[in-house]
Amino acid sequence: MTYIDPSHIARCAQLAMILEVSATPKPGNIDRDHNYTDTRFEHFLASAVGVYPILEKAAVTKAGIGKLLYESVVESSKWQSGGNTHFGAFILLIPLVMAGGRCKNRKCLEEEVQKIVRETTVDDAIEFFRAFAMAGVKVKPVADLDLTDTDSIGQIKIKGLTLYDLMEISKSYDMIAEEWINGFEKTFECSVLIQEKIRNYGINDAVVLTFMELLSRNKDTFIRTKFDINKAEEVTIRATSILQKGDMTGIMNGICQFDEELLKEGVNPGSTADIIIAGLFVSLFEGMRF
Amino acid sequence: MTYIDPSHIARCAQLAMILEVSATPKPGNIDRDHNYTDTRFEHFLASAVGVYPILEKAAVTKAGIGKLLYESVVESSKWQSGGNTHFGAFILLIPLVMAGGRCKNRKCLEEEVQKIVRETTVDDAIEFFRAFAMAGVKVKPVADLDLTDTDSIGQIKIKGLTLYDLMEISKSYDMIAEEWINGFEKTFECSVLIQEKIRNYGINDAVVLTFMELLSRNKDTFIRTKFDINKAEEVTIRATSILQKGDMTGIMNGICQFDEELLKEGVNPGSTADIIIAGLFVSLFEGMRF
Repeated sequence: MTYIDPSHIARCAQLAMILEVSATPKPGNIDRDHNYTDTRFEHFLASAVGVYPILEKAAVTKAGIGKLLYESVVESSKWQSGGNTHFGAFILLIPLVMAGGRCKNRKCLEEEVQKIVRETTVDDAIEFFRAFAMAGVKVKPVADLDLTDTDSIGQIKIKGLTLYDLMEISKSYDMIAEEWINGFEKTFECSVLIQEKIRNYGINDAVVLTFMELLSRNKDTFIRTKFDINKAEEVTIRATSILQKGDMTGIMNGICQFDEELLKEGVNPGSTADIIIAGLFVSLFEGMRF
Repeated sequence: MTYIDPSHIARCAQLAMILEVSATPKPGNIDRDHNYTDTRFEHFLASAVGVYPILEKAAVTKAGIGKLLYESVVESSKWQSGGNTHFGAFILLIPLVMAGGRCKNRKCLEEEVQKIVRETTVDDAIEFFRAFAMAGVKVKPVADLDLTDTDSIGQIKIKGLTLYDLMEISKSYDMIAEEWINGFEKTFECSVLIQEKIRNYGINDAVVLTFMELLSRNKDTFIRTKFDINKAEEVTIRATSILQKGDMTGIMNGICQFDEELLKEGVNPGSTADIIIAGLFVSLFEGMRF
């Protein structure tokens, strides 16, 4: 196996995380102008910088996603004390970076990333649980597995569930899991949207507008988990109506107002941000520059 | 020679560049909320991410600052098209990173960085010229050497000038050159100021307030070069008076207004920003987290 420059792939992933959190305004989420009380913009920057060696290792690795995920969470938390910043993003980025290390073009990336996630093992599932416990993420329990319960590891072993199996179980309500099962469909769509928009709107607004399009199409997992499916649907409807405002001034004003509202309610579409990061990674991997 | 984890040192340098450009408002300079027409916030982020492999290499290198500087400029420009972003910062960071690779504490860093810059060669001076030409920086000519003139390379060879010698010639009017000659005095002072302030004010305001203190004490080289020494002095006086406003609200309002004024006039204290980057690097090297 010949690997493409692993440092180049790792830097594409770092920059994807940094450009995503910088883009403003992304309704409800942390960005360069919006912080939560305990988690701030700078925590995301430090996490993206800190995780570099794990990304570089992933770019020359054939297996062991679970362990790489765990190491990503550990490394991220060494560089910042803002709590969970990138857990969902790492679940998408690690297999994409592994695929990126073996590929020169998008077609190869699409094929390899599917192969990589399908080949995950029971050990990957167990390491995922450890990573998950360490990151302290809010999630909906996976079917009859309670992700907050260490007994689940016993269940995983008995049932022989791989990490891919866990994602299969969760795909109906979890956008990130769905990406694993559906060949990273939204991620690759997202990268097309960003690259289409960057020439006319520049990098910041290309990300913001793509974020809004994703939001209008998908019920965000973070919102479903924190609130319920009705709230997630309400957000998609609102995003759709803002994008129909016609001219860019109207749309951007609508986005700013929407942002204020979601921040006030504590509604953060975190999974949509994770897809943006994955889409930015694919775009940078394909050579997008600005 | 045992080297400390070179990836850790390189990430400290990356994060230093990213935190510096993010901190807002830094009067006259690009930050997360202020762009120039052709050079934008995101260009600085991409440059900081892109230069990683050169920083990692510097952390295990004993000599060759000039070549590393040239490679930094080349790598930075592969990742962004906003022009010169970090040339002054690289001149400070490369020797600091080289020293960081050999040191576990500040005392060692202070000693090693002095040794490293004193040991530069004529070849380093020549490579510096190449880097300089590639970066397209505005500078005052070095004494009778015109930095925009390739004949200067002939002059350097004839006179046997090392890169340290060039800095010695420029130190009276160039803050960055002065750092090389004075043992990175302002850099280490800056790191103390940032670490003192971070507990009370958080990372953003610690950087902003330290930036203002540096600005009140030093006539910025960038301003001297673009305008003249009177303009540079006017800026120090103004910065001093703002910091004397007493309470934090008054000071922060003063800083915002000062920022608007300098941006309107095109007065950007770029060398002060470079010292901030170097000071942030030392702070992160010493274990500062947030």
